[in-house]
Amino acid sequence: MASHPVAELTSSSSWAMIEDKFSPYAKETLAKLVTFLEEEVRPAERLAKAQLPNDATRWQTVIPIIEELKAKARKLGLWNLFLSKAHYPEHGVPLTNLEYAVMAEIMGRSGHMGSEVTNCSAPDTGNMEVLARYGNAEQQNKWLTPLLNGEIRSAFAMTERFVASSDATNIRTSIRQEGDEIVINGHKWYISGAGDPRTKVHLVLGKSDPNNSSTYKQQSVVIVPADAPGVKVVRHMMVLGYDDAPEGHSEIIYDNVRVPLGNLVLGWGKGFEIIQGRLGPGRIHHCMRSIGAAQMALDTMIQRVTDPTRKTFGKFLYEHGTVVADIAKSRAEIESARLLVLSAALQIDKLKAKGAMKEIAIAKFVVPSMALQVVDRTMQAFGAEGLSQDQDLAFVYANLRTLRIADGPDAVHIQQVGQRELKRAPGLAKRTAEVKKREAELFARHGVSLL
Amino acid sequence: MASHPVAELTSSSSWAMIEDKFSPYAKETLAKLVTFLEEEVRPAERLAKAQLPNDATRWQTVIPIIEELKAKARKLGLWNLFLSKAHYPEHGVPLTNLEYAVMAEIMGRSGHMGSEVTNCSAPDTGNMEVLARYGNAEQQNKWLTPLLNGEIRSAFAMTERFVASSDATNIRTSIRQEGDEIVINGHKWYISGAGDPRTKVHLVLGKSDPNNSSTYKQQSVVIVPADAPGVKVVRHMMVLGYDDAPEGHSEIIYDNVRVPLGNLVLGWGKGFEIIQGRLGPGRIHHCMRSIGAAQMALDTMIQRVTDPTRKTFGKFLYEHGTVVADIAKSRAEIESARLLVLSAALQIDKLKAKGAMKEIAIAKFVVPSMALQVVDRTMQAFGAEGLSQDQDLAFVYANLRTLRIADGPDAVHIQQVGQRELKRAPGLAKRTAEVKKREAELFARHGVSLL
Amino acid sequence: MASHPVAELTSSSSWAMIEDKFSPYAKETLAKLVTFLEEEVRPAERLAKAQLPNDATRWQTVIPIIEELKAKARKLGLWNLFLSKAHYPEHGVPLTNLEYAVMAEIMGRSGHMGSEVTNCSAPDTGNMEVLARYGNAEQQNKWLTPLLNGEIRSAFAMTERFVASSDATNIRTSIRQEGDEIVINGHKWYISGAGDPRTKVHLVLGKSDPNNSSTYKQQSVVIVPADAPGVKVVRHMMVLGYDDAPEGHSEIIYDNVRVPLGNLVLGWGKGFEIIQGRLGPGRIHHCMRSIGAAQMALDTMIQRVTDPTRKTFGKFLYEHGTVVADIAKSRAEIESARLLVLSAALQIDKLKAKGAMKEIAIAKFVVPSMALQVVDRTMQAFGAEGLSQDQDLAFVYANLRTLRIADGPDAVHIQQVGQRELKRAPGLAKRTAEVKKREAELFARHGVSLL
Amino acid sequence: MASHPVAELTSSSSWAMIEDKFSPYAKETLAKLVTFLEEEVRPAERLAKAQLPNDATRWQTVIPIIEELKAKARKLGLWNLFLSKAHYPEHGVPLTNLEYAVMAEIMGRSGHMGSEVTNCSAPDTGNMEVLARYGNAEQQNKWLTPLLNGEIRSAFAMTERFVASSDATNIRTSIRQEGDEIVINGHKWYISGAGDPRTKVHLVLGKSDPNNSSTYKQQSVVIVPADAPGVKVVRHMMVLGYDDAPEGHSEIIYDNVRVPLGNLVLGWGKGFEIIQGRLGPGRIHHCMRSIGAAQMALDTMIQRVTDPTRKTFGKFLYEHGTVVADIAKSRAEIESARLLVLSAALQIDKLKAKGAMKEIAIAKFVVPSMALQVVDRTMQAFGAEGLSQDQDLAFVYANLRTLRIADGPDAVHIQQVGQRELKRAPGLAKRTAEVKKREAELFARHGVSLL
Repeated sequence: MASHPVAELTSSSSWAMIEDKFSPYAKETLAKLVTFLEEEVRPAERLAKAQLPNDATRWQTVIPIIEELKAKARKLGLWNLFLSKAHYPEHGVPLTNLEYAVMAEIMGRSGHMGSEVTNCSAPDTGNMEVLARYGNAEQQNKWLTPLLNGEIRSAFAMTERFVASSDATNIRTSIRQEGDEIVINGHKWYISGAGDPRTKVHLVLGKSDPNNSSTYKQQSVVIVPADAPGVKVVRHMMVLGYDDAPEGHSEIIYDNVRVPLGNLVLGWGKGFEIIQGRLGPGRIHHCMRSIGAAQMALDTMIQRVTDPTRKTFGKFLYEHGTVVADIAKSRAEIESARLLVLSAALQIDKLKAKGAMKEIAIAKFVVPSMALQVVDRTMQAFGAEGLSQDQDLAFVYANLRTLRIADGPDAVHIQQVGQRELKRAPGLAKRTAEVKKREAELFARHGVSLL
Repeated sequence: MASHPVAELTSSSSWAMIEDKFSPYAKETLAKLVTFLEEEVRPAERLAKAQLPNDATRWQTVIPIIEELKAKARKLGLWNLFLSKAHYPEHGVPLTNLEYAVMAEIMGRSGHMGSEVTNCSAPDTGNMEVLARYGNAEQQNKWLTPLLNGEIRSAFAMTERFVASSDATNIRTSIRQEGDEIVINGHKWYISGAGDPRTKVHLVLGKSDPNNSSTYKQQSVVIVPADAPGVKVVRHMMVLGYDDAPEGHSEIIYDNVRVPLGNLVLGWGKGFEIIQGRLGPGRIHHCMRSIGAAQMALDTMIQRVTDPTRKTFGKFLYEHGTVVADIAKSRAEIESARLLVLSAALQIDKLKAKGAMKEIAIAKFVVPSMALQVVDRTMQAFGAEGLSQDQDLAFVYANLRTLRIADGPDAVHIQQVGQRELKRAPGLAKRTAEVKKREAELFARHGVSLL
Repeated sequence: MASHPVAELTSSSSWAMIEDKFSPYAKETLAKLVTFLEEEVRPAERLAKAQLPNDATRWQTVIPIIEELKAKARKLGLWNLFLSKAHYPEHGVPLTNLEYAVMAEIMGRSGHMGSEVTNCSAPDTGNMEVLARYGNAEQQNKWLTPLLNGEIRSAFAMTERFVASSDATNIRTSIRQEGDEIVINGHKWYISGAGDPRTKVHLVLGKSDPNNSSTYKQQSVVIVPADAPGVKVVRHMMVLGYDDAPEGHSEIIYDNVRVPLGNLVLGWGKGFEIIQGRLGPGRIHHCMRSIGAAQMALDTMIQRVTDPTRKTFGKFLYEHGTVVADIAKSRAEIESARLLVLSAALQIDKLKAKGAMKEIAIAKFVVPSMALQVVDRTMQAFGAEGLSQDQDLAFVYANLRTLRIADGPDAVHIQQVGQRELKRAPGLAKRTAEVKKREAELFARHGVSLL
Repeated sequence: MASHPVAELTSSSSWAMIEDKFSPYAKETLAKLVTFLEEEVRPAERLAKAQLPNDATRWQTVIPIIEELKAKARKLGLWNLFLSKAHYPEHGVPLTNLEYAVMAEIMGRSGHMGSEVTNCSAPDTGNMEVLARYGNAEQQNKWLTPLLNGEIRSAFAMTERFVASSDATNIRTSIRQEGDEIVINGHKWYISGAGDPRTKVHLVLGKSDPNNSSTYKQQSVVIVPADAPGVKVVRHMMVLGYDDAPEGHSEIIYDNVRVPLGNLVLGWGKGFEIIQGRLGPGRIHHCMRSIGAAQMALDTMIQRVTDPTRKTFGKFLYEHGTVVADIAKSRAEIESARLLVLSAALQIDKLKAKGAMKEIAIAKFVVPSMALQVVDRTMQAFGAEGLSQDQDLAFVYANLRTLRIADGPDAVHIQQVGQRELKRAPGLAKRTAEVKKREAELFARHGVSLL
């Protein structure tokens, strides 16, 4: 068991928990992915950085090595692994959420690249799911096919500037029909992927029926070509000093953008339904990639603190202070977080995302903070270099930090879990009442008075 | 799946992770145990307390309801579940460590009682394992049989007063042969179970060959009848104000105690081997019981904070401050700790305790602190009552607190995990070197200069 | 400066911050107190324990060494130091809250004893303040004088069983006038001091006017002799396994207790006013004693980890794991907590308790948790002995744990501080508006367009 | 007292602790600084950013508004406040470390700008101290005077690439005499300020006598003009994605740089002495600025969570989850950290930096982590905007994060404090022995046997 590459790579005993839930296809694919990641992707990370210019042209750049790796990955069958055949029979691969979750961790060992070169990166993944599930034939031909082929990229425009949009009912972007056109006006920001020259399409969420008595039927989603007149990428938002070019996180004004009526997805007022379905498994993928990132950070730390050229005062770094304890804690935290996410992924397989809400929410608030902590310890072990552009640590840190906000801030998920737990109260009270009843009988039978 | 009583009881998604690893026998036994625990054991908790006197006679008391429940449990086949047939073909039950781990959690919902009435309580469990594995026929007839029958109880005398005995080589108790007798002299304390009137036998660890060049061959284990002349229970040690009568944690002086040569276990110098084998799975059992205790605490908290008679300033307790967040965190912590321990139990099944050292150590330092935190939050929600004798919380807290010390303090396990992680350094360095080599090739091939 | 005994004792740089705020009398008294504590009180701690029986007679015991030390303390002028002349000109000593706070820390080095032998222990302190401030001459003659003389002790009966009494409006005890008598009916618990044979008087809070439109005028406080007919001490409540005999924390039923009308304190409906005034400085005293306890724990830890008889694997304990870091953190936490409380004490001196509400609340939720953490680390360094009756650590821990609940649970103080901070919002908004206005002017003047 | 602007600004009760230690000059200067900061500096923050180009010319930019504010500050007497007349009679201002510490907090409310416009920013401050204390007349004329005038800036080149330079004996840069020249060869990085066009001088630490038997006499410090041939700024290092232009953190190669012998500071082998003297108070300044940053973050959070335009689900942000508790904790943490640093500053005033080593080290490892936590909570309250370029939070976070590494990583300071605490062991043991002796006498006198 320990001989499987993924167990070796992650030094993880959780593999034993799930191995028997893996199909032969999944095992084989995983092994291939591990090899591909270690032999092709990780060695290409710095080249990809070098191929991205430092000036404004970075936003017009298609990084050659990434396209090269995409071709290789596709040839190897390491492609669109996120799209489960169970839910998307036509386009999907025969992988469960659990199986894919492990692969997402492996991809996460190489930051954005691991998922991008296998065509598994957000927000394309969610957008492909939306189009595969809710798109009509024409929409699929035009946008889903090139996305599945990795020929184009996409954006999902939800978050708005000046608006507390973690409450989706606050959304202000207007979507209205005029004749056989749809007119969109709105001000979005932190729209990931919108900076990329390969991004040809935005899915835009807005209010089409603001007066509908159900706040869940006021929103619609519309397909907007990235080059439609009126789509203005105002600027690129930063994340802790990083612009994440070329994908970026754009501020976009949709200024009287007009698209044909056929660009409406699923139907008027279906926006909420679409975003609900979109988010569950995606959160798990983010979590597993975060675990991959944390595991990489721990591996990096272990190498640093055992590096003889880094001795101070005659001792290895690991012989100082709390380093060994920090490593042990990181190991324990990664291991338990991994199990948590795998168990949530399995829950999705068994009960759909809706039945796994609590597990997903737990993973969502536990994992990024855990990974941040592990990366932070590693940064600290590296000194100034740990914060620099020479290590990926600071970049990874910034990335993980956004995950405490993206797809709902921690607080939202924490409240959700807590509220669900509170719903167990009546059942618990009933059970307690039964225990008390039997207790009273027992005291009576033993002739002891119950105070 | 969610309909299995254990999943209901623990509201746990981890059941899905392991259900397919359970035999039909294990599932049936687990269901029986859940019912027994909820319908018989929990209702008897307060009666058991009431049947224990408050004066010194508490140390001579056999609590009637406990003996009654033992008889019931045995009739139901809920007996000696800790003893795995795989390792103890003659006496064991056909349960894996993983299967038993789940049962240990269920037992832990009822403090000491759950395990005692099913004859699964420490230190008897470890002692039975020692006798079953290393005892000769005569030793087994005399001591193992009545232990397996729940007729007697036992103690394991290792920890010494005035000695830093977390380093076992510091042990000072002397065990030496005189003719065909063994003479024991030593000063032990915190010997659990030695206060119990049913305890008829001590397994005593001491130094038989202090000058042996191997520090691991200096110790031996000897069987000492509890009533042998010279066995003096000096006093009962407390744990955070609790004496844990009638078992207790005794201070014992072995003053020239003489036993026949036949009471030596396994052979001279085999002490270290015996204690090594004894501890692994036992730690997992402690951890699972702790998780049961934590889950009970969380359930108790949920009931308190939704209790309308506990409103303050017109609001339910859960509507104040950070209560909902505290509950959510407790839920997440319990869930991840449970998975961690289950995964360690599975590792033991696959690789024996020796192959699961790291996983056991992680569970050992993570779980008690986690459980303490959950119980502490619940105590706080109860106000003064949470610290009182009217709730089990403070007692459970004291119990869990000892687990951060018993079987090795946290620090020992943390160091062990950290040191094992450091051993991955050479493998990681090799893999990094390969990545760097391929990276250099890539840069060369793409005509980019590598700084 | 470092040569002052208090600085030496606490190895604290905070002494420099406050030295110039100490009067010569305060300095001299403090020096005397330090000497008395180290030379008389600490050496008597174990004797006091030995003089308290283990059986039920412990509740009838007056511990001889404590009475002996009281006499000595009084002779030395180390008596009633808590009672500030500024507020109680007749009975008080010329010490500020700040000056007394430092003395409370010194007393706290010796658990209950330090304050008891100087007649500075709760709940007597608060009760003496109430009687001194609100009592009439007759009440003072009868109860305050013997309390000031340390001849009797007292209880304050507020907390009720079955009631969420952290919201004082939930109080159910009934206090009503019948002719020229007052009749009291109620069920209290966790009434500290009520178990002590020397306790001769209870101050009882109850509802005298439950229908008053102001919830703050429904309560009154009545003086009840401990031996009045109908005062039934039902049982002694435990705290984490400790009964804290002989003072204890009693459950008391007031069953138709009748006292003369003259036993009403201050007037009908003045209960809330009385408890408000009673609590502020008392919380600071608790906090300072907790800091004394934490400092003692740290000192104890330092001695343990440098003890050559406690070496394991050839190393001092401090050479293992995170011990040095734990000590450093404890040191930093104690130091900052001390400054926090001293600054709150000074604030009381300057602005009265009412003007120091935020500072008091901060101290109240920060200090006990801090001290618990320091003591917990020390317990862990001691292994099983740390939890035992041979060290004071577990007892101190239990004591500190109650402080997270007594006088308002942490959550109440946290909310209070948070809400007060929120009140700064309008002021902050105004200042921000001014900054923005000037910013706009600046941009205009520099000809830069402001986005 | 609360009416002093600094108390209002920081809503801090610590002002009462120190007010009487402030001279009239210090009070007046502080009030002026508060006004200047709020009315001139904060309104200019965004303009300063706008005046810094985004392209490579940012490294050649002198930001006009900063120079303008420098002139104003100087005119107001808010200039070189860090330089204490007590130590630097010729150039200094009559402020103690304590007095200046409060001013540093005020400056820290405005990031780098607050200290830069008052000519109080690192590394110039430390460099001016070095030149004022150790420089000869010629060195002072040439470099100190323009620094004091704010006409030039400077760098201190210590940290080296590829070297674990937190152990200063690992330094590799070579400084050797050749005739009447000094030749410098070395590879430094993270040299703050070296990117600035106004930076005209580097103080370079290197090894001049690598074989000296005392590792503390191997180093020397040399003055190197920034434009000396062979000084090559290789690149600008990043900190969590920020380049901190124009100052920056440069990687510099000193390639056979030659300077006259007169550029040696203090003498051969005096390098260690120089850096030792340089660091103490500087660390306190960093800490106080961090507290200013934390206070600003808290103020910002309070405004955000009370902003009616940010309501979600019909509630203010502060009505959700743990926001109020987060604010309360931030408040408490800031307050206690502030007192800690003020007390360290006072200690420096009383005992010089050498006598305040423990206090400085405590502040150094406590404060940046505290401030990071406060800023992190605020970022979280702002959602994505909190991580963006539109708020200063992420930038401030990056800045604070470096402080856990700069001037010695946390671990070094933690170990230092812990080791110093351990030195108290013999004194504690002696005191314990005295207590035990008296205890034995007491037991004997009371006829109780001591176990």
